Amino acid sequence: MNAPFTLSLDAMGGDHAPDIVIKGVAEAHIRYPLARFLLFGDEKRIRPALDANKTLAACCEVRHTDDVVTGDAKPSQVIRSGRNTSMWKAIEAVKAGEAGGVVSAGNTGALMAMSKVIMRMLPGIDRPAICSMFPSKIGETVMLDLGANAQCDARNLVEFAVMGECFARAMLGLDRPSVGLLNIGSEDLKGTDILREAAQTLRSSHLDMEFAGFVEGDDITKGTVDVIVTDGFTGNVALKTAEGTAKLFSEFLKNAIKSSLMAQFGMIFAKPVLSQVMARADPRRYNGALFVGLNGVVVKSHGGTDSIGFANAIGVGVDMISRDLNGRIAEQLAHIAAQAAPDSSEGAVSGGAALADSPVESGAK
Amino acid sequence: MNAPFTLSLDAMGGDHAPDIVIKGVAEAHIRYPLARFLLFGDEKRIRPALDANKTLAACCEVRHTDDVVTGDAKPSQVIRSGRNTSMWKAIEAVKAGEAGGVVSAGNTGALMAMSKVIMRMLPGIDRPAICSMFPSKIGETVMLDLGANAQCDARNLVEFAVMGECFARAMLGLDRPSVGLLNIGSEDLKGTDILREAAQTLRSSHLDMEFAGFVEGDDITKGTVDVIVTDGFTGNVALKTAEGTAKLFSEFLKNAIKSSLMAQFGMIFAKPVLSQVMARADPRRYNGALFVGLNGVVVKSHGGTDSIGFANAIGVGVDMISRDLNGRIAEQLAHIAAQAAPDSSEGAVSGGAALADSPVESGAK
Repeated sequence: MNAPFTLSLDAMGGDHAPDIVIKGVAEAHIRYPLARFLLFGDEKRIRPALDANKTLAACCEVRHTDDVVTGDAKPSQVIRSGRNTSMWKAIEAVKAGEAGGVVSAGNTGALMAMSKVIMRMLPGIDRPAICSMFPSKIGETVMLDLGANAQCDARNLVEFAVMGECFARAMLGLDRPSVGLLNIGSEDLKGTDILREAAQTLRSSHLDMEFAGFVEGDDITKGTVDVIVTDGFTGNVALKTAEGTAKLFSEFLKNAIKSSLMAQFGMIFAKPVLSQVMARADPRRYNGALFVGLNGVVVKSHGGTDSIGFANAIGVGVDMISRDLNGRIAEQLAHIAAQAAPDSSEGAVSGGAALADSPVESGAK
Repeated sequence: MNAPFTLSLDAMGGDHAPDIVIKGVAEAHIRYPLARFLLFGDEKRIRPALDANKTLAACCEVRHTDDVVTGDAKPSQVIRSGRNTSMWKAIEAVKAGEAGGVVSAGNTGALMAMSKVIMRMLPGIDRPAICSMFPSKIGETVMLDLGANAQCDARNLVEFAVMGECFARAMLGLDRPSVGLLNIGSEDLKGTDILREAAQTLRSSHLDMEFAGFVEGDDITKGTVDVIVTDGFTGNVALKTAEGTAKLFSEFLKNAIKSSLMAQFGMIFAKPVLSQVMARADPRRYNGALFVGLNGVVVKSHGGTDSIGFANAIGVGVDMISRDLNGRIAEQLAHIAAQAAPDSSEGAVSGGAALADSPVESGAK
């Protein structure tokens, strides 16, 4: 981060708002001393914490809002009647150019719906996706969609692949990330028609992508590819299954140690390395999922996270803005369009059209 | 197990066949001394191991076969030309009444396709599913389908629920197992039309099931319900993601301990409980997936397992035969049929028809 810039925060989103949001800002301020924050929410509940901390107050501006999006609110409902909520106003600040991105730990469906209405899609993208990173044996694996779209067609999956590849370039600093499509076998004939159709498009030369074909569930943690593309249903189940398994394992471990005096003695010596392992698999470390495909930076924090987790979500926002993810996606789409239509005198074919015009997409489904 | 009975084994299936199959039989013989085994495969490779072990030879009968189903063989191909393989002959022995069930560590797709052709479906069941157990915080969670059907309709999911419930009664000894449908949120409106349709049927009173509604990926390890129903695509991805995550965690742990002398010293004291944890999460412990819905007992062992894992797969077969899973499923389908058509003078409506005639199924999709 080279220049000072501003992030807009939904201070009322999440299970422990606004407390963990404010503490998360304090944590993020240490990491990103040049960043400024717009806090949208109930001023009476936010102000006292800022008054008690002058350094924090200096980098924050509070914008009072009366309403809050509840955890069980339906997306259609908040679109109609949620315009005075902290979430809506926080997103609007990005649209208005007052902030470079928004972070919320609130209702995922509402955040996605509002972001779509207020920011609109990136030109050439049909649907946004939820994108995040998983720990793997050799580093991190980028995965999307983690739950925005329960059902996807081949075009959606191809767009996710393009966006996920840009995300991996930006976040992991890779020159040419490899991309895999999640399936139930690596053979070409496995899975659904939609997957086979998407694979065929991803193999076509005008995409110029390091497409590794089909991968399976265990490839997420093996690190077989840098980016794994799937529909939002499968991605969401995989994400939660992985979280549940990691939690089960650490609880088995804790309970076993608690049950034995000898193990407790041994743990005095082993604890530092065990803490390292726990830190590496700590879900807070991977907190902050990006909504890719929107005309602006929107980061969703886990609703139950603490201040460290929320600061990490702010970190994802900072990275996305400073590394200009959306600029990279637009560039990539333009490149694909140019490759797909090299002789076109029109020049500026939209990326979406280039994806849709691929031989597979135009065939009968 | 009260009486002596016979299991048919594909001695040539899996990465380390026939060695781990024969060693697995030796292990299983200790646990089930009354069981007998028909070993189908290359007699030259099987016989020497039996000649060296008289106790083992006494409970085994070798049936020579010339051919083997390879790991990359396509189901359609083995149906046409695989009638002399160890897998085909082992399944046929069940059909012929020579064995109560078959166990194979070979090609999953081939085993499923051959079993369908040779054994046929249980009356009233449209499609078989792959069913197994996951470790959970409070015991075990039954889950199906783990990969037989990449795409499922609502009727398939309802049948899986009925069969999974019978499996949980038989394997876990539960009186009234609770059943959940895997989704990306617990609210009624989440997910796909197929899931909502299946949920509506499962709620109908004639099924008389403890249906708990929608569950999510992390509920598998939480043990929220006893049985989790999903399509084979999602189930397979969830299974492999969970396996990958458990492996990642244990590798992080091993590497961290290796890297520190102090931790290695501590491990001298903590090792017994850590071994307990590893044993509880040991994939061999959960080896042996049942193909439910077929007119016979078919158990699929992991292809890369060792003799302990293969013996566990044999154990699943033993349990399924001795607890008469298929009898229970048939009984449950008859019960559902009777509930659905209480006034019918015909009496014996098939279970499948009773499921298909539910109000949801007859409506437009």
